[in-house]
Amino acid sequence: MDRFMQAAFDEARRGHEEGGVPIGCVIVHDDRIIGRGHNRRVQQGSATRHGEIDALEQCGRQPAEIYRESRLYTTLSPCVMCSGAIELYGFRHVIVGENVNFVGAEDRLRSLGITVDVLQDESCIELMQRFIREHPEIWYEDIGR
Amino acid sequence: MDRFMQAAFDEARRGHEEGGVPIGCVIVHDDRIIGRGHNRRVQQGSATRHGEIDALEQCGRQPAEIYRESRLYTTLSPCVMCSGAIELYGFRHVIVGENVNFVGAEDRLRSLGITVDVLQDESCIELMQRFIREHPEIWYEDIGR
Repeated sequence: MDRFMQAAFDEARRGHEEGGVPIGCVIVHDDRIIGRGHNRRVQQGSATRHGEIDALEQCGRQPAEIYRESRLYTTLSPCVMCSGAIELYGFRHVIVGENVNFVGAEDRLRSLGITVDVLQDESCIELMQRFIREHPEIWYEDIGR
Repeated sequence: MDRFMQAAFDEARRGHEEGGVPIGCVIVHDDRIIGRGHNRRVQQGSATRHGEIDALEQCGRQPAEIYRESRLYTTLSPCVMCSGAIELYGFRHVIVGENVNFVGAEDRLRSLGITVDVLQDESCIELMQRFIREHPEIWYEDIGR
């Protein structure tokens, strides 16, 4: 796993240790992580704090060109809301840990000219599968339906 | 203005009084407001707390059917991120105060079978225009570009 997907995976694992949905995300500008986060549905009772949204929040308010020049790494294929956030901020390159457990709006992103690489990383696949097995009710309440 | 758009407008006005982007939103289930909020980009240094996201946050974690049975009122046409949130949670009916100052992803929502009514309410139009005149730099940093 490259170091940025490793950092996203570490976020996912931290979420899992907190009892939350194990999806992590980092935003990388000039080979430096400028925002990192994980899904906080359980931890904050939040319907919108997906990993990608959380990482964007951690970036603070950046100038538009910073987002456009950044890569977004997420352990799971981004849902329609997070894909909308990716579109809104003009990211050009998204790296996805896996889309075995969930396929988000990748096709929509690609149709907008955004590069979406899917790694099918075994660690990401296994952690997500483990969570779905352990907490199907939370998964199906979140983006799993 | 009907009472729910009035409540969304009150949220927008509150945001304006706080020095923020004046966009408000309420989520209505069974003729009762279950979540209300406004854009907090300025107030919280947030890139994702648009009015719709903020209102969803205020709802907490609701069962899927609650969102599907709810109407979402927003003073301004919803951007691609907020439209993605609307799609994610399965809202079927969105009422928009105006789309004179900004046209979001209404067509995408309609293509998904979601009803989008645009009221072109004069109060919503004027408040937004006033903010864009007062703070073009914030508006163009947010969804205005």
